[in-house]
This record gives sequence, C-alpha cells and structure tokens, in this order.
Amino acid sequence: MTETVNSRPARAKPALPGRQDWSSWPHYQAAAAGFRGYWYPVCFSSQVGEKPRAVTLLGERLFVIRDRGKVFGMKDRCPHRGVPLSYGDKQFPGTISCVYHGWTFDLETGDLKAAITDGPRSPICGKVTQPTYDVEERFGMVWVYIGDGERPHPIDEQLPEELVGNPAVVGQRIQPRTGNWRFACENGYDEGHAKYLHRTSLWRLFKPMPVWNSTKIVKRGRWIYRVQQEQYWEADFPGLGRWSGTAWYKARPPKRVGNIGNTSSHRKVNPTIAAQEFPGFASVSMPGVLRIVYPTFIHYEFYVPTDADNHLYVGLLADFRKGMKALPFYLKYLGAVRWLFHGQFSGQDKWMVEVTDAPPEKLYRPDDSLLQWRKLAEDTTEERLERLRAQGVEPTGTR
Amino acid sequence: MTETVNSRPARAKPALPGRQDWSSWPHYQAAAAGFRGYWYPVCFSSQVGEKPRAVTLLGERLFVIRDRGKVFGMKDRCPHRGVPLSYGDKQFPGTISCVYHGWTFDLETGDLKAAITDGPRSPICGKVTQPTYDVEERFGMVWVYIGDGERPHPIDEQLPEELVGNPAVVGQRIQPRTGNWRFACENGYDEGHAKYLHRTSLWRLFKPMPVWNSTKIVKRGRWIYRVQQEQYWEADFPGLGRWSGTAWYKARPPKRVGNIGNTSSHRKVNPTIAAQEFPGFASVSMPGVLRIVYPTFIHYEFYVPTDADNHLYVGLLADFRKGMKALPFYLKYLGAVRWLFHGQFSGQDKWMVEVTDAPPEKLYRPDDSLLQWRKLAEDTTEERLERLRAQGVEPTGTR
Amino acid sequence: MTETVNSRPARAKPALPGRQDWSSWPHYQAAAAGFRGYWYPVCFSSQVGEKPRAVTLLGERLFVIRDRGKVFGMKDRCPHRGVPLSYGDKQFPGTISCVYHGWTFDLETGDLKAAITDGPRSPICGKVTQPTYDVEERFGMVWVYIGDGERPHPIDEQLPEELVGNPAVVGQRIQPRTGNWRFACENGYDEGHAKYLHRTSLWRLFKPMPVWNSTKIVKRGRWIYRVQQEQYWEADFPGLGRWSGTAWYKARPPKRVGNIGNTSSHRKVNPTIAAQEFPGFASVSMPGVLRIVYPTFIHYEFYVPTDADNHLYVGLLADFRKGMKALPFYLKYLGAVRWLFHGQFSGQDKWMVEVTDAPPEKLYRPDDSLLQWRKLAEDTTEERLERLRAQGVEPTGTR
Repeated sequence: MTETVNSRPARAKPALPGRQDWSSWPHYQAAAAGFRGYWYPVCFSSQVGEKPRAVTLLGERLFVIRDRGKVFGMKDRCPHRGVPLSYGDKQFPGTISCVYHGWTFDLETGDLKAAITDGPRSPICGKVTQPTYDVEERFGMVWVYIGDGERPHPIDEQLPEELVGNPAVVGQRIQPRTGNWRFACENGYDEGHAKYLHRTSLWRLFKPMPVWNSTKIVKRGRWIYRVQQEQYWEADFPGLGRWSGTAWYKARPPKRVGNIGNTSSHRKVNPTIAAQEFPGFASVSMPGVLRIVYPTFIHYEFYVPTDADNHLYVGLLADFRKGMKALPFYLKYLGAVRWLFHGQFSGQDKWMVEVTDAPPEKLYRPDDSLLQWRKLAEDTTEERLERLRAQGVEPTGTR
Repeated sequence: MTETVNSRPARAKPALPGRQDWSSWPHYQAAAAGFRGYWYPVCFSSQVGEKPRAVTLLGERLFVIRDRGKVFGMKDRCPHRGVPLSYGDKQFPGTISCVYHGWTFDLETGDLKAAITDGPRSPICGKVTQPTYDVEERFGMVWVYIGDGERPHPIDEQLPEELVGNPAVVGQRIQPRTGNWRFACENGYDEGHAKYLHRTSLWRLFKPMPVWNSTKIVKRGRWIYRVQQEQYWEADFPGLGRWSGTAWYKARPPKRVGNIGNTSSHRKVNPTIAAQEFPGFASVSMPGVLRIVYPTFIHYEFYVPTDADNHLYVGLLADFRKGMKALPFYLKYLGAVRWLFHGQFSGQDKWMVEVTDAPPEKLYRPDDSLLQWRKLAEDTTEERLERLRAQGVEPTGTR
Repeated sequence: MTETVNSRPARAKPALPGRQDWSSWPHYQAAAAGFRGYWYPVCFSSQVGEKPRAVTLLGERLFVIRDRGKVFGMKDRCPHRGVPLSYGDKQFPGTISCVYHGWTFDLETGDLKAAITDGPRSPICGKVTQPTYDVEERFGMVWVYIGDGERPHPIDEQLPEELVGNPAVVGQRIQPRTGNWRFACENGYDEGHAKYLHRTSLWRLFKPMPVWNSTKIVKRGRWIYRVQQEQYWEADFPGLGRWSGTAWYKARPPKRVGNIGNTSSHRKVNPTIAAQEFPGFASVSMPGVLRIVYPTFIHYEFYVPTDADNHLYVGLLADFRKGMKALPFYLKYLGAVRWLFHGQFSGQDKWMVEVTDAPPEKLYRPDDSLLQWRKLAEDTTEERLERLRAQGVEPTGTR
C-alpha cells in the first residue's frame, strides 16, 4: 500500500489562515458575557407587574417587579438557601418574600426586613442585604444597569442622542437568540454580508443591492460610522464570470456613485436632528448598539448579552415625525416592516449568528468595520476601568 | 458619560453573607452521593421478579433479582466487556447470564460459574468474582446494603426501633426525584419552611399553622428530636404589619402554648410504644430518615441517594393499631393521605429540593435543626470510619 | 449498630479483574476517533448532487459535492468567520460560495477564487486555500481519504482484493450508529457472541448454532482470519446443567467436526476467486473492515468513525455470480437478507456496541480474535507512521 500510482504531489497541510485568537483586544476577548457598566433593555414594560419576572443578564440571575408603579430589580437568589426569590411574592407592600421560609426583603434597599418564620424579633434582620439593580423605563421597555457597584451614569447619557428629548413613535421587537452577543453585534455592523446573504430576502425583493463598495470608518463622539464611498452594481470576477445584485424585477440602481451616507434624503428624518450627526448609513456604539439611518426613520438594534452563549435581540424603529405625519409609520410598521425587516431579513442574521464560530478567523477588507468596532470597545473599556480604579472600585465582574 | 447627576452614593458591593462552603462538616460535604455503611430501600418487593431490575444507589449501578423466593443483588456491569448484566437473564437456577457472551455468575457468591461460549472447561471459571450486595425485604420493599466490604449490621438495628417487632399496617410511596438527597433530608427536618411554604397546601387547608415557634433540639439514641416550645399564631412585624397563619375557614388554633412534642395525644400511637420515645414531633437519624409522629400514625421519609443529583423519595405511613382498628387507616390512607400528604404537600417539598442551591447559605435561628443534623451525620460517620480502620477495612468509597 | 449477628465473614472488596486500560496498544488506544491514512465510505453516490452534503468523518467536518459528474470534498468551515460552507451553494461552476459573504473556493484546489462582496480585485484572493479531500466512488458509494497531508494510496489497494476487478452485484446498507467504532469492529470480529447473543435472531431461526468451538487466528496478507477448528453443539456445564444451541425447529447440525473455514462450499463464491484466499469464515483488515464468507456471497462491514462516540455502519453484500445467475441474489437480498441480516440480527450487534464499556475489561479465550486484531492495528499503524516520518510528513492528526 506504500507505492502509489497517484501522480499528484503530496498536499502540504495548510496552516489555519489568519487570526487564531482575539488577544489583540483583551477586554473584548474577556467580554464573552458582555461589558459591565451599562444599561440594557431586558423586556417590555408591559411584562412587568406585581409578580416577579426572572431575567438573566450578563450571566447574572435577577428579577424585576413593579411596586406602586415603579420597577425594581434584585438578585434572584435568596441568600438563605439559594432558592430563586422570583418564585415568591409580595406579602407586604414594597417587599418580596421568599416562597420557602418567608424571608422578606425591601425592594428599594435590599435590606432583610423580616424572616417571617422566625418571628418579629428574628436576630437575622438587619444583618443581610440583598443586592439590588438600578432600573429605568424607556420606550416601553425596562432597562437594567449592570455594573461593579459604582454609581450608574444616567441612562439618557447612554441612549442614542437623538432619542433623548426628540418625540418619536416607536415599534419594538424583543427576541431571545442563540449565539454570542459579539457575533450578533459584528454581524449587525458588518459591511459585507448584507449584499450577499440578504440579497434573497423579501425585504430586498425589489431593491437592487450593490455587489461591493468601498467604505471608510469615521469616529464621531461615542459612535463609529460606516461611510460608503463607491458602489458597484455588477462585477466581472477573473476566471469566474459576471455577478450582479440586480435583477429584472428589481428597481434600477441609482446612477450616482459616491458617499451615500450623508445625502439630503437623510434630512427627512427630522428637521430637529441635524443630518451631519449621521455621516454614515450605519453606526455602532457601546455596549453593542447599532443604528441604521433610513430616509424616514431610524432603526436600532441592541444586542443584550444573556450569557456567553445567548443574547437578546432588541429591535427598535423610531419615526421622529410628529402628529398626523406619524400615522403612516404605524401602518407601515405593523403592515410590513415588522414582518419583512424585523422578521425574515433579521432571521437570516439570526441564523448566521448561531453558526458563526470565531476565532480563528481570516478577516478581509470590508471587515475594517469589525476591527474599528473592536477598537472602540477596547478603548472605551480601558477608559472605564481607569475611571473605576480612580474611584477605588474593584471591577471584579460579578457580585 | 463619566459625570453623573445621580445623587445616590455608590453602592458598596455586598459580600456574600454567611457560610461559603460545608468544610465545617467534611464527611457531610463529601457525602454528595450518600453515606456508605447503611441499608437503603430501593423499590417495592413486588417489582422484583425472575428478571433483573437495574438500580442505581449511591452512584453504583447494581441489579436485584429474585431466585426461588429470595432477592439477590449484584453489580450491574459484566467484567468481560462492561455490558449491563441486567440485560441478561437466568439460563440456570441461581445464576445470571450476560446477554452478550453468556458469562454466568452465581447470584449468591458472585463466582463466574460458566462462560457458555467458551465451553465447559473454560479456563476463566474460578478466576472472576462479581461483587454482590446484601439484600433484605421489609415492609413490602427491597433494601440493599451499601458499604465498603465490611460485614453489614443487621437491618433491624437500623430501622426505626418501633417498626421492629411491633405489628403495623403501612402505606408506602416511592418516587424518583431530582436534587441532592441532603437538600431533601434537610428540607424534611427543617423547622421553618412548613409554616410558610405549606400554608397553602390542601393538606393544611383547615388546619391553622403558627407563624413561628421556639424550638430546641434533643438527642436521644440514634435520633435527634425537634421539641417545639412556644407557638405564635400571629405576629406584628415592625414596619411591615401583621401576618397570620390562621384564616376564617381554618380551625381555631389551640389555646395552650408550650411543648407540643410530648402531648398525651401521642400516646395514642400504640400502647406498646412508650410516648417518651418521642420527645418531639419530628426526628431524624442516619443515613437520612425522617420520622413525624402524628396522634394516630407515624410518617417516615427515607431519602435514598441515587447519585449526587438525584434521590429516591420513600414515604412510609405506619399505623400500629391492631386488627379491625387498623381498617380505618387503609381507608384514610388510600382516600386522602396518599393524595394530600404524600402527594401535593410533598410536591411542594419536591419543588424546593430541586431548586435549593447551597452552599453558600446564610442560616437563621430555626436552622439549628439543620446544624444538629449535620453534626449527627458528621459524628456518626467519624465513629464508623474509626471502626472500619480498627477492622483494617479501607473505606475507599466505591468498589 | 457496631455489634452484628451476621456470621458471614467480611467480604473482601474484590479488585477489578483484568485489563484496566489499553496502554498495551498505544496507537489503538489513541484511535478513539479512527485511524488516519485510509479511505472511508461516507454515503451513497446518489446522495451527492449539486448541493453540498455535510459529513463528519474521524471528527472532521467536511462536505462533498458533485460538479460536472465528479465528487469533490472540502473542509466544511469557511476560514473567514467559521460558518459551514455546506450552507452555501455554487455561484460559478467548479466552485462553492459561502452563504454569509460569498467567499468562493475552487472545488479542485481549495483556492479562494473570489470574495464577491469585496469586488473583483479583492486583495485576499490568492492568499487563502481551503483544505480539500480526495474522493472516489465505488459500489455506489462515495469514499473519502482522511490522512495527514500525504499522498493517498489508490483506493483499490485498500478494498478487499476480490472486489477489485471481479464483477459483482451488491446490496448496501448505511446506518449512523451510537458507540465507538472500535467496539463495533471488535463486535463484528468477535468469536464468542454470535453463538449466544444471536441465537434468538430470526436470521438464525432455523439454523443450529454451536455452543462453542475452538479457533485459531491466521494472518495472511493484510487480513487476519478466524479458523474454526472444532465445534460443539451441546455442552454440560459442571454444577449447572446441559446447554444447547439446537432446537427441535432448527435444522440438525452437521456431523463433521473440524475446520469449517476452508470448505468446498466456499468455492461456490466464484470460480475466479480462489478459495484458499479465505482460510476462515470471518476475516478483518484495517482500518476496520469485516469480511464474512458465505457459500454463495460475501458480506462486508465497514466501521466508519464519525467521532469518538459515533460511527457509520456500512454493510455490503456482494454476489460474484454473473448475468442471470445473479438475479436470485437481488430477490433474496431485497426479500430477506436486507431485513433479517442487515436488520434485526445486526440490530442486536448495534445494541451491544452502544452499551459496551471497556476498558476495564477481562478477556477470555475466544477473545484471542480481539487481541490479534488489536495487534494488527498496532503494527500496521506503526509501519505507516514510520513511512510518514521517512517522507517528512508530521502526523499531527487533524488539519
């Protein structure tokens, strides 16, 4: 069996190409379960009532509950015997009682106010404090701050600027998804895949897609923007043939070639929002927020880490037109956008995020968007940790 | 984002309160899969016939089988190729043959009597002995001894004393359950939870429950007893309000306050069983046996370790009245007790045992019962190991 | 509880008998996921068309695809972001394009020919080569070579000799099975179990089975043969009784006692295949191929490692008679053999392979067949590795 008649030379065993790990970005590599020090949307406001609702966020088990109108958050593990507090209920206003032995915690402070089965003078009262979470409500959703014990920054400092103070009508979608949140965020901001993966989606049925384009990444404030420079609607690949994102049933592509990020159409968004705030079609900011500026509305995606293997996809569409002008938005959103864009189009992304498996990885030219995003995450995190150290807060990660 | 308008001071990150591990009780901590050196009930006698029945006990896979009336136990792994012997059957009386190659073991001694497919003069015969287990039958159940190779003590030395020699009519329930056996045992003996968790059970529908009571733990012989000293039916919790285990549809609680463990009602159990044997309502003994003394019957729970994550709940109700007097017991047991007590009430316990997650844990005053039980387990095990060492038996754990 | 009335002496805790590991055969022990350097059948030819078909072989994920008649094999992980290439399709003839960003690889060479979404002059082209696999088609099945980068030997050098050049009609069965491929191979070649385990199979319903027989293993070329020397149809086991593989409804066993491996009936197989090539009924060769010579046909089993815990059972029946003489084979195969032999009989083997758990193991006299097979695997592998080293190829295992 040693002698062979095969004339082909022995194949060299190819080494894995490209980057073998993410050690170039140590904070990003370590953030499999998410970045601490941010507000995250966890569910709809309408889903939080007088009964506790269990939530897993950045690997931490907590619950949210409404008490006299306000939403509170608390670690979902009774310190007594480890039973989830979210199995319990309110025995007294402003408190939660563990279902097992009736340990009763103040929702505001976390203080153990009573251990019912040990009577009113139980010596344990005053000796146990349950960790609580800061909670806010915005856009019909509940947001929870996950940090390291430091004072949280106001949520409005973290929300996309144009969403604060500008009235808008919104449509949302929240969906638990499999896969690491970083793959979801990188997929969202990824320059290249939309033109290939999504070319078959119904959302793109009548819209031509360029084959490729040149792009530059521009940083402005907390955001980095993808600025598309040149678009090519067809291409001849040497030795293979012609490939095109157009089709007879699709609209003709625009004649113009050039920066399409800062067009006049974007001024339609809202007269009060200066178009120069959006130098590019797509932008991203920490801790994993994507913003896509369409002519008449803005679409946001929040990639909320559940744990290292799961995330919450939160899609938000905002229309800044006022009064009767906003009516068509609701009709359009409920009638089409929700199903085509938040649904099937986004479902293709969901599929890819589930099966992405990196590193190792071999990035190519359009992945400059990924490299810049990772750099943004790395630099921002380094700054935060320096700030914490200056305050004497030890960022241990979990509490 | 560094500047904040939040006037609340930074929250100190609270350390986990209480006990971080069980290293105070090293034997107990090591006994996740159960304590060796005891008899354990594994199934009903009626479930064991001429075909092998596989059983997992303290992490060991064994099988039981009946041969000419007597039940035998043997390790359920053929030493030849690791196939379960319980897949085989009897080819000759008093033996089990492996389904794969016909290796045939003597049920009494474990000796390999024949390797059928190697003929009558197979040189392997006499060179292999399969481990066997001591088996007994009591109360319609099969009991297996798990030890370290030492001679087992007689099962009657381990059974609750009043069950040996006193005729009783019994009702049993056997149910595989999720969760560590220690959580099941601690839950069973736990002073506090019954008054809170079970207040909503049908079994307690018309019975008032105290809010809390003071208790002391008394050791007598192999058992430790919970002696309830004072009972409080209502309580005012400072800053919260009044809480009560009574309700308009429940019977009025008794007027008396004091030791309710040794009441005259307990003398009804059986004239031949001295009431002073039961200084308290609930008692526990190794290797995880709970005894609850009711006025007209005694309820036992055996927490049988399957492995570190599962156990067998074995409930046994015994009525010591004789002849026609025992008839109402059957009616009551089959008509109500089985469903309300062994069923829904016990189902609440099952739920808690599944979700208990300790250590870490923060015990409170009523948990003195748990501390005393762990001390009993620790001391008893230390004594057993000393005895084994004196006999030259090495308690390696598995064989 | 220390004093016992049990008069039986303390049981010595028996040590596990026999072999605790497979360190006597280091290559065999290391080959949990299969031996590299061989061709393996992976699916039917009819299952491979213009769409990629994912295959896992020896723990490697690859795909096969047909292009202009020929089947190609390629590693099923896009080097860009780790997405399976088998989710993609052909955008240009002779290539596969990844579904995510349109990276397009040449099926023959593995070269990256285009990254569609980066345009025709993408600088990454020519810098990435995807590993490919050698693929052949034989007997209506697709065969893939798994090696370490060396030139593969011709598949015909590895196939059973009589299958090369001799026209045959064949029936095949391919079934994914649970369990390590070595247990499947050892079960196939195992002398002992057929007479006991399979005695109840329908395939053996009317055929008597010997209780036991003496055997010797003979090596000839790449194969080792089981030569049965003496057969015993009944046996008296001391202290147990008589045991027999015969029954009133089964045919009488042959009178003759002696070597049944080289009988004249085997000459019926094919006049062109010399009977002396088959000194025994059952033979085995690397990398896990079983050959059972029946009077009028030959049955083969290929145990194809999927990974360490799963394998592909590939059964092949070949009849070497020509023309009209082969017609009855089809009728017999489709009408009976497929269901009884490839089905229920083989299903008993499947069951045993799933539950075999070795080492530890305690082998007995008939297991000489296993020992010789392991020696064959060990020696053949040592020779291959020496050959690779002489060629300067480093056998790292995975690529």
